Amino acid sequence: MSTDVQLIGLDWGTSSLRAYLYDADGKVVASRQQSWGIRNVPEGGFAGALQAITADWPACVAMAAGMIGSRQGWREVPYVALPADAASIAHGMLRVDGCGSHELWIAPGLQRRQPADVMRGEETQIIGALAQQPQHEVNMRFVLPGTHSKWATVVDGRITAFDTVMTGEIYALLIKHSILGAGLPSDPAQPFWAEAFVRGVLVARESGAEGIFSRLFSTRALMLAGELSPVHVPDFLSGLLIGEEFRLARLRDNGGVTPLCLIGDTSLCERYALAAQHFDYASPAVIDNAAAQGLWQLASAAGLLTKAKLHSFSGVTP
Amino acid sequence: MSTDVQLIGLDWGTSSLRAYLYDADGKVVASRQQSWGIRNVPEGGFAGALQAITADWPACVAMAAGMIGSRQGWREVPYVALPADAASIAHGMLRVDGCGSHELWIAPGLQRRQPADVMRGEETQIIGALAQQPQHEVNMRFVLPGTHSKWATVVDGRITAFDTVMTGEIYALLIKHSILGAGLPSDPAQPFWAEAFVRGVLVARESGAEGIFSRLFSTRALMLAGELSPVHVPDFLSGLLIGEEFRLARLRDNGGVTPLCLIGDTSLCERYALAAQHFDYASPAVIDNAAAQGLWQLASAAGLLTKAKLHSFSGVTP
Repeated sequence: MSTDVQLIGLDWGTSSLRAYLYDADGKVVASRQQSWGIRNVPEGGFAGALQAITADWPACVAMAAGMIGSRQGWREVPYVALPADAASIAHGMLRVDGCGSHELWIAPGLQRRQPADVMRGEETQIIGALAQQPQHEVNMRFVLPGTHSKWATVVDGRITAFDTVMTGEIYALLIKHSILGAGLPSDPAQPFWAEAFVRGVLVARESGAEGIFSRLFSTRALMLAGELSPVHVPDFLSGLLIGEEFRLARLRDNGGVTPLCLIGDTSLCERYALAAQHFDYASPAVIDNAAAQGLWQLASAAGLLTKAKLHSFSGVTP
Repeated sequence: MSTDVQLIGLDWGTSSLRAYLYDADGKVVASRQQSWGIRNVPEGGFAGALQAITADWPACVAMAAGMIGSRQGWREVPYVALPADAASIAHGMLRVDGCGSHELWIAPGLQRRQPADVMRGEETQIIGALAQQPQHEVNMRFVLPGTHSKWATVVDGRITAFDTVMTGEIYALLIKHSILGAGLPSDPAQPFWAEAFVRGVLVARESGAEGIFSRLFSTRALMLAGELSPVHVPDFLSGLLIGEEFRLARLRDNGGVTPLCLIGDTSLCERYALAAQHFDYASPAVIDNAAAQGLWQLASAAGLLTKAKLHSFSGVTP
């Protein structure tokens, strides 16, 4: 490794730890992944995990984002308020005392006051995705589908609002534990039934101001009536829940249509792109993972890259 | 027992079986309860359960309502369409062949076509509650809170619409299995925190056309921010979910306020009555259990009481 190495970035969530090594231009020159999320740190704790995942990498400044900054993480970093951008998030970063191996900084998450909502880690992905947009004054909505989907509104390049929708978690609960999932065939290799998915999306769209809460049981009623095949139930339900996210998004749009950018797992993003069509959105941009770029952007905004350069010039191991 | 006995009524659901013995005036002169719901019938099956729970009662016509008429029950009785009243429900009743001990009839459930929804058993409670109203041309909404809450609209004494909301089931899933229930104190003797409940109700009310789907996670965010005590989380969440039912009801009201009648468990009905206040409803009537009266009404509409009388006069055991 050359003295050009500037930074180690850590995307440290609940269930996994990803580490990135960057050169002086912000290009990722090496990356590693472990299942050492904060709920599953190996012996040696957080410090041991950091040393192990960066073993034989040059010593340079490190910065982390995600649940590692939560109360259950290495050091709790207070949330930053909205509106937020790379500068305000960088301003909220805190250094971990006594890390030993590295000068380590942790990024804060974001907090919305009313209604109460929080995120940790997604803000870094959004900052990374923003850096990929052609113009600086971006106005769009970033969608990070998953267990707890995040929808973040960006106005003039700043995050002004966001919502968490527990889509993935509620889907899993309903399929695994509720009457809606009772008696379904368990086929791990089940294909994606796009038609059943779209049917669920349309039920959500047609629900208007009522939303899907009183429509969930229709999954059962349709199955009992022989109008929905048991094999189609999971995708119908997926469409219903994802459709509800889009119904909410359109309410926030106030009649206009804010361009969307999806960040996440490709097959999940495909579902969202399909649902988007039925809510009159243009085909959304899709970014698989923006964490690496976001970590670099935040480190840059925090002035850590200059420090890293000093370190590598002087050869000092902090 | 005298020859005045007219009818045996069976409220036969998923998890319990209740039997009522009526005199010629429709008064319940004896009742029994067992945990012999259709998922838990004793040895001897449905016929054995019926014989056992009516042991030493006079032989007379019997009629049942509830999940006993479902595909998993004794005999599947097709749903009846809306609008429905005692006459149309009675018209849909089917007799069980080869019951042996009794002339047994099973009431149908109700089906709404669009959006798809079904009920089995609640229709009988509503018919029973309707019979308790002072005037015949009733216009009100009957609410049966529970695992799957039912809201039924009655216009001029006929059930014209209904919705199933999976409030109780989703509440249990969220508390037991989701992140919202993680780390809560488990106190079986927890009191009812009315203030936390009302707070959740108000969040639902203020959510407007968005509804609570994007508000569920606020439970977590408020707890993380120290603005909601972990002991208050269950009642806050209960308020949020029950509040959503009322938000939907007000949308159906089209600006007016339809009088409410609650049917069910007293402590659960108290929560609904409290939520109702915050949605501008007048204090709702509360009926603990209307199944016994509903069974009698349906038997009467089906002409079974005359038959029963003939039987008891002639002394014939059918």
